[in-house]
Amino acid sequence: MHEGRKINVGVLGATGTVGQRFIALLSEHPFFVLHTLGASQRSAGKPYISAVNWKQTKYIPAAVREMVVQECRPECFRGCEIVFSGLDADVAGPIEEAFRKSEFAVFSNAKNHRRDPNVPLIVPLVNASHFSMIQQQRALHNPPLHKGFIVTNANCSTTGVVIPLAALEKAFGPIESCMIMTMQAISGAGYPGVPSLDIVDNVVPYIGGEEEKMEWETLKILGGVTEGEDGRKVFDMHARQPLRVSAQCNRVPVIEGHTECVSVRFARRPPPSPQQVREALQAYTSDAWTMSCPSAPRHTIFVHEEADRPQPRLDRDYQSGAGVNVGRVRQCPVLDIKFVVLANNVAIGAATSSIVNAELAVCKGII
Amino acid sequence: MHEGRKINVGVLGATGTVGQRFIALLSEHPFFVLHTLGASQRSAGKPYISAVNWKQTKYIPAAVREMVVQECRPECFRGCEIVFSGLDADVAGPIEEAFRKSEFAVFSNAKNHRRDPNVPLIVPLVNASHFSMIQQQRALHNPPLHKGFIVTNANCSTTGVVIPLAALEKAFGPIESCMIMTMQAISGAGYPGVPSLDIVDNVVPYIGGEEEKMEWETLKILGGVTEGEDGRKVFDMHARQPLRVSAQCNRVPVIEGHTECVSVRFARRPPPSPQQVREALQAYTSDAWTMSCPSAPRHTIFVHEEADRPQPRLDRDYQSGAGVNVGRVRQCPVLDIKFVVLANNVAIGAATSSIVNAELAVCKGII
Amino acid sequence: MHEGRKINVGVLGATGTVGQRFIALLSEHPFFVLHTLGASQRSAGKPYISAVNWKQTKYIPAAVREMVVQECRPECFRGCEIVFSGLDADVAGPIEEAFRKSEFAVFSNAKNHRRDPNVPLIVPLVNASHFSMIQQQRALHNPPLHKGFIVTNANCSTTGVVIPLAALEKAFGPIESCMIMTMQAISGAGYPGVPSLDIVDNVVPYIGGEEEKMEWETLKILGGVTEGEDGRKVFDMHARQPLRVSAQCNRVPVIEGHTECVSVRFARRPPPSPQQVREALQAYTSDAWTMSCPSAPRHTIFVHEEADRPQPRLDRDYQSGAGVNVGRVRQCPVLDIKFVVLANNVAIGAATSSIVNAELAVCKGII
Amino acid sequence: MHEGRKINVGVLGATGTVGQRFIALLSEHPFFVLHTLGASQRSAGKPYISAVNWKQTKYIPAAVREMVVQECRPECFRGCEIVFSGLDADVAGPIEEAFRKSEFAVFSNAKNHRRDPNVPLIVPLVNASHFSMIQQQRALHNPPLHKGFIVTNANCSTTGVVIPLAALEKAFGPIESCMIMTMQAISGAGYPGVPSLDIVDNVVPYIGGEEEKMEWETLKILGGVTEGEDGRKVFDMHARQPLRVSAQCNRVPVIEGHTECVSVRFARRPPPSPQQVREALQAYTSDAWTMSCPSAPRHTIFVHEEADRPQPRLDRDYQSGAGVNVGRVRQCPVLDIKFVVLANNVAIGAATSSIVNAELAVCKGII
Repeated sequence: MHEGRKINVGVLGATGTVGQRFIALLSEHPFFVLHTLGASQRSAGKPYISAVNWKQTKYIPAAVREMVVQECRPECFRGCEIVFSGLDADVAGPIEEAFRKSEFAVFSNAKNHRRDPNVPLIVPLVNASHFSMIQQQRALHNPPLHKGFIVTNANCSTTGVVIPLAALEKAFGPIESCMIMTMQAISGAGYPGVPSLDIVDNVVPYIGGEEEKMEWETLKILGGVTEGEDGRKVFDMHARQPLRVSAQCNRVPVIEGHTECVSVRFARRPPPSPQQVREALQAYTSDAWTMSCPSAPRHTIFVHEEADRPQPRLDRDYQSGAGVNVGRVRQCPVLDIKFVVLANNVAIGAATSSIVNAELAVCKGII
Repeated sequence: MHEGRKINVGVLGATGTVGQRFIALLSEHPFFVLHTLGASQRSAGKPYISAVNWKQTKYIPAAVREMVVQECRPECFRGCEIVFSGLDADVAGPIEEAFRKSEFAVFSNAKNHRRDPNVPLIVPLVNASHFSMIQQQRALHNPPLHKGFIVTNANCSTTGVVIPLAALEKAFGPIESCMIMTMQAISGAGYPGVPSLDIVDNVVPYIGGEEEKMEWETLKILGGVTEGEDGRKVFDMHARQPLRVSAQCNRVPVIEGHTECVSVRFARRPPPSPQQVREALQAYTSDAWTMSCPSAPRHTIFVHEEADRPQPRLDRDYQSGAGVNVGRVRQCPVLDIKFVVLANNVAIGAATSSIVNAELAVCKGII
Repeated sequence: MHEGRKINVGVLGATGTVGQRFIALLSEHPFFVLHTLGASQRSAGKPYISAVNWKQTKYIPAAVREMVVQECRPECFRGCEIVFSGLDADVAGPIEEAFRKSEFAVFSNAKNHRRDPNVPLIVPLVNASHFSMIQQQRALHNPPLHKGFIVTNANCSTTGVVIPLAALEKAFGPIESCMIMTMQAISGAGYPGVPSLDIVDNVVPYIGGEEEKMEWETLKILGGVTEGEDGRKVFDMHARQPLRVSAQCNRVPVIEGHTECVSVRFARRPPPSPQQVREALQAYTSDAWTMSCPSAPRHTIFVHEEADRPQPRLDRDYQSGAGVNVGRVRQCPVLDIKFVVLANNVAIGAATSSIVNAELAVCKGII
Repeated sequence: MHEGRKINVGVLGATGTVGQRFIALLSEHPFFVLHTLGASQRSAGKPYISAVNWKQTKYIPAAVREMVVQECRPECFRGCEIVFSGLDADVAGPIEEAFRKSEFAVFSNAKNHRRDPNVPLIVPLVNASHFSMIQQQRALHNPPLHKGFIVTNANCSTTGVVIPLAALEKAFGPIESCMIMTMQAISGAGYPGVPSLDIVDNVVPYIGGEEEKMEWETLKILGGVTEGEDGRKVFDMHARQPLRVSAQCNRVPVIEGHTECVSVRFARRPPPSPQQVREALQAYTSDAWTMSCPSAPRHTIFVHEEADRPQPRLDRDYQSGAGVNVGRVRQCPVLDIKFVVLANNVAIGAATSSIVNAELAVCKGII
């Protein structure tokens, strides 16, 4: 575990939904110290309490209330080594690049750089090994960067499903096909997000771009980093065994917690039994926990035995939402095994992932 | 179309959720005349208005308010030719049999006789041909029945999905595999049914027995009626081509309307395109419509073009809930084609199905 | 009843929430004929189907789908005699005035002219007599108008409560004090309106400006029209007996239907009994019904006997939402009598009111 | 503060909704030690984990999972000094009396003994002084009790409102009239409680017996204990100044947290200003806090400044739900001052109140 110095951090997009969550989590962090808050020009110059429309169930941390919000420019973040980005996708791209260029370690929740061939897309409980791409990312800059880099985390619905999938691949070898059907919480859409008239007494069977993200991101995350003939590293997109992913995404009237029905087919024949799957999920531990990242959950995957669990309202806050819940592991008449996943979309699905990624980078000595 | 005489009908379980719906529909029917209402001993002898805890958005039909509730015994239903059963499964079995034995045509929404090898399980927009089993069902009685029989309709979640599946098999030949994920309305559980503490801000990823029902009923409904070597008719359970069905059932905070994410693989290679599928669904017409059953929908399947439809709140009442809605027809990376179905669980998924079944029986001269 | 000619009408703000409701109602009207749809410049020139994000449970009327949306300028509405305004308050003021000046009869759901001393604020089941102000309104223009005028209807929460209050004053004389606590549906805020994160599993005990509107509008509506010394007519704001109104407004997770807890104190001592109040409410009939306005409800006020009614989900659609529901009439230990009101905020609380107002104007020969 | 020994406690009705909450709170208590769990015969003999249908968002405390459930008879609770009763009203009466007779201190959440003239009805942040009745309650037994007594806490909706009322009476003298309109959470009805079909997209403007409880309990709690001519103590029901209370109770689709709109008229003329009221509420401190009861909240009343607060979802967990939230303090045109109260019905409104009452009894040396 990281035993040493405190590290100053900043938050980009500090007044938004994800930004608020970053602040709530970082204000109680053992070694990250909230130093600078950045938001749009409209908010800059105001005390945080006046700039934000705070929507968390915990009140604004006292230390943050009167901090003056800055613009999202690197020169305003002097003194920070790390910035966490909760920026909206329409502005995140160039701002995050500017911070990287100024030698900040950028941990982003935005989608903008997820498909960048030199930017790792890291779900901290799955593919910490992808940090190996950082060196190449720095070297590509002119002049090469010494400390700056960007790491993104995955879409909230992707995160929930890749954790059990990684556990299964680790135990039983490659997965060949995966069908996912999601029931996603309204908080996944930010604020104001989903109009209430669209979702009270209703389901919306469509979330723009979400299915494509899940089908693509899953391959990048579960795939490896291999070296091409020219010596350059590439994300192999699960090349050792083609993986077909089909996602169907729905919005449901739930505040927090994405529930996902998953069915998988393994390459290996015969496939593992439901009991073997349960044990493999239960036994899975992440590098983040092994390396003592303080925000990593003890139980990466909590496996429920009751027939009707996990449920978002009852299970989303287990371990502060930092792990995932799995239940109803059983045989699938079409593929091999089906089960239900519940992941807290605003914790492990968003801010918590970025923070554990940063903890991993510190523990690995990259920061 | 049936042009002739009025037919007196009764309702078993008249005070329950499905019974109330039967009453609302039958009170406006062109040729069925509500004649007798039956319920438990506790309700018998009371005027309907005093016996029922009416929970429909339309008020109790005036003609029914003061009707005296009877016990569910055949001798109390003299004057009726047809009874509709909205009885609970714990009492439906023997009561429905007693009415059959007394030469009533019984149309049941209960699950008790669905697996009976001589009782048709009919979704009226799909397998009206299964009425051919009635003769054998009557003949098996000792002495043989002249008029009595039982016909059941399917579970509400099964009904929604077999209608588009039937349309696809008609157009493109056998389906080989089918994955279904449901988001089911609370009204599917009756009243009092789902406690509010279990479903507000929540999803329950389990409905007892529901997945098994969907996986089994689909085969009986989509299969044919064939003749064994002994001359006896049997339901072949889709024997011409084995069909694997996998269902994952969830309860969501929606009042009415089951939404289902479906993915299918066809036997035929190459499979039809999404556009061909859309056209086949749109073009599908039911025998019930062709035979002018008054409660059958003009559009058996309404195919939505908008990306975010169908939605339960907006689309469940189209055609009084007598048809089904399909949307988001697109390719599936794992199977062939995926789409979203919305069916009104209390209309086509329950009472409306029984009534159209009875209309079919009348039009076919079985009654 | 109006027996004669068809009258062409237009809708301003046709793509908005209230506009959609106007269209749904007018498309089935016996003598108003939908002739022109107006919306913002962004929508103008498009077929209605492309301009609107239709959110009604009934589908877009066939005749309207391809109508080309116009700008909200009088010259685009030639051929119409009446325009219904569902415009937002930030633009409604001058647009409605321009139509009046061009000799249109304007029936507005917007708040802009409600406080105008020459514009009647008419709840059609209450104060049809206020049409007497139209002549003065026209005469004030230079040159005087022949046909043009503006009539507004009330805020949706005001409408629900003034109807039973009017019935009580008619039967028992002036009310002295009135306490109102509302539980208002999300549809009252339009679309996108209330963010779902604000209202799922929540109550918001504040609606900006709503309490002031209720406290003020009630006085204008329940008050009379008197003549000043200079011969000019004025709304007397219930001057014959000062009426104190206190409103507390809340938003609750209900789609449609405002529920209001009301308590009143009468000037008259002793006050009427609950039974007398019930009878007076039940017996109240509106001028709109007496004059056979086709959209007026037979039961202006439906009085429920069951202890737990009215409820928005079960009762909001009674009489297509054109009347109001009252229940739980009982003594109040602090004032005299308390009761619960339910009014459909998008029907009698909005579009239906404007339409009945227009029907009244036709029946009274003002149009 | 109590500095000494641990005290063994038991829970009656341990498997119910309130019982579960007692267990969650007591398992982390500084000096109460969970020793015995009692429930119905059906549960007795089973390990708690098997007997309970646990519905809390925190998992079952490890120490409790395997505790064997006992019957609710005093002999099964040897070793306990205190029992907390979460029993249903249909059984609570005689069981609680049996425990009192066996010299247990009984802290009950049930309504059965609230109207008993010798049983204090104590909201711990309001009327700790009513413990003075215990001596008389014990003496009335034959033979007199040494340790046994019953103390009840109030109905969840009463609790929310009497706390600010007590603060106002302390600062400004007697209140003369009080109008209360509640929007109560579904958890107030226990489990299974409110059927979801009754409350999704709905409001139920009636809760059986609730209004009478609020109107009566408020008087007992806010009144004093006076001595009659015969030397016997009596609860004076606010006799120094008659207080009229009118309650209107509604159920809304909220999981936890009762929101109440309150308006009061003071005896004193002129009444205090809204600002004076705000300050008095803010400044109010309870005996429970002064005496260092560990479960008492630092802020008895948290006064919100934002126009749209308190809201149940955002504010119910402040101070673990042990205090109350007040907002929107403003003038009332009919009475004097109106405001909004939010109280957590399962914390300060139920289990937390019983526990603080027990802490008070310990601190006062009654136990």
